[in-house]
Amino acid sequence: MNIEDYLAEKKKLVDEALRKYFSDNNPFFEVMYYSIDRGKRIRPILAIASYEANGGTKLDEILSVACGLELIHTYSLIHDDLPAMDNDDYRRGKESAHKKFGEALAVLSGDGLFAYAFELFTESETNLKQRFRVIKEVSEAVGPKGVVYGQVLDIQKHEEANPKTLRQIHLNKTAKFISLSIKVGAIMASAPDEIIKVLEKGGIYLGILFQYTDDILDVTGKKEKLGKTPRKDIFQEKLTAPRVYGLSGAKFRAQRYAALAKNTFHRLGPNFELFNEITDYVLNRTF
Amino acid sequence: MNIEDYLAEKKKLVDEALRKYFSDNNPFFEVMYYSIDRGKRIRPILAIASYEANGGTKLDEILSVACGLELIHTYSLIHDDLPAMDNDDYRRGKESAHKKFGEALAVLSGDGLFAYAFELFTESETNLKQRFRVIKEVSEAVGPKGVVYGQVLDIQKHEEANPKTLRQIHLNKTAKFISLSIKVGAIMASAPDEIIKVLEKGGIYLGILFQYTDDILDVTGKKEKLGKTPRKDIFQEKLTAPRVYGLSGAKFRAQRYAALAKNTFHRLGPNFELFNEITDYVLNRTF
Repeated sequence: MNIEDYLAEKKKLVDEALRKYFSDNNPFFEVMYYSIDRGKRIRPILAIASYEANGGTKLDEILSVACGLELIHTYSLIHDDLPAMDNDDYRRGKESAHKKFGEALAVLSGDGLFAYAFELFTESETNLKQRFRVIKEVSEAVGPKGVVYGQVLDIQKHEEANPKTLRQIHLNKTAKFISLSIKVGAIMASAPDEIIKVLEKGGIYLGILFQYTDDILDVTGKKEKLGKTPRKDIFQEKLTAPRVYGLSGAKFRAQRYAALAKNTFHRLGPNFELFNEITDYVLNRTF
Repeated sequence: MNIEDYLAEKKKLVDEALRKYFSDNNPFFEVMYYSIDRGKRIRPILAIASYEANGGTKLDEILSVACGLELIHTYSLIHDDLPAMDNDDYRRGKESAHKKFGEALAVLSGDGLFAYAFELFTESETNLKQRFRVIKEVSEAVGPKGVVYGQVLDIQKHEEANPKTLRQIHLNKTAKFISLSIKVGAIMASAPDEIIKVLEKGGIYLGILFQYTDDILDVTGKKEKLGKTPRKDIFQEKLTAPRVYGLSGAKFRAQRYAALAKNTFHRLGPNFELFNEITDYVLNRTF
């Protein structure tokens, strides 16, 4: 199976599971689902791929956890798009939550998704130890030592184009969460710690690559294809890879991070070959 | 020991533990701690009281969980005070987070506290099963089937003073979280399910009482004593107990909920006598 087909197949599984989790009578679940709809599902797909590469076979078990990751990612997008933050009215090819429902419901739908993710993490008691570890790792990676801290750095005014600060933003805002997604799949499959460590490291490289391509697509991408507004980073004077290294410098460094990621995943043998293909896919993505 | 001394003693323990949890070099932890400082600590105190009443003896174990509850409560206050929500510039006797740090950092400090709470819930692996259950119960009670849903109802315009809607707001916004706090202490002490059920029920009555007195103090309270702005509910045409039942009707019903709570706690015998005293304390509170 080629990589596009693989990703499409897993995306379908995630989309179906998400629809199930949001089929509640409470109309507020529809408000939350509006923002959940139509994601690329990168994080849950990484979790499932890692689970399967590590020998995991219970799809239901990993799906609840994988979907929880997508809920947290979506909550961070909703809050990130708020007028007081990045002020973006367009997301996933449609009006962002605050544009559609107003700011108050946007804040609350983010809050609701965040809490609901932990309901999914605790959905079953099989693999209780693994799920407990997942919750511990998730709360560290997405909180004030990870994603939230990355956002704090990201919204600051940066007079200087400092490479160290750029790395801190990329690492905290994106790479820790991408790495976490792979790690979570391995934890759920009870993978040995040596393998988890390698996957975590490869995931950090892949995550930095992911943010490099995001920064590059903000310069070169098309609104219809991206489903979000390009050129916002430039307009808002964000600290991005093209600002620090220039567009060709950023592209060069993206390729270097892709090579680092692939060298790392390669050490794990043929079962993890898929992660090399995902890395190339991320390097060459146009949306 | 009388009830005021008891509450002051437990509050001191919670305050000290919270200070410890926020002594990080990262300056964003100071931003979060600004909003954590100076709470009444009702929820963590209820968790500790319930833990001890159920025979729990490991203070460190319950403190991490109890402090997690306070973090979640504080996050909900920060988001609730935002201009798009209740628009309150004054909280816990000082400027609210968005007034002090701007809206973006306020949103993020709420998000950070929410995530950090789950780090505290997973701080240790002793009582892993109990902690897992705590996380499950917390995510349900504070998410889109609990606190967040209560906020969604609370910010809606209510043309009619409908008692059923008032009950839904009180139950979801406040009572489930108060009841949860008591339940969490019992879970951590491995209390039998029959006792947990009774505590949960008493906690719902206590929680509704708590919101009744909150609604009443919005009418009768003083800003300096409350540490927040009174008369905002009236100004914003919120659905409150005095609006539905009149001030004396609300006071009468508050007493009835206090009686229901005490009758319920009373069934558990002398070990739980303290909860009757806490109930009277909440009924008669002036802040």
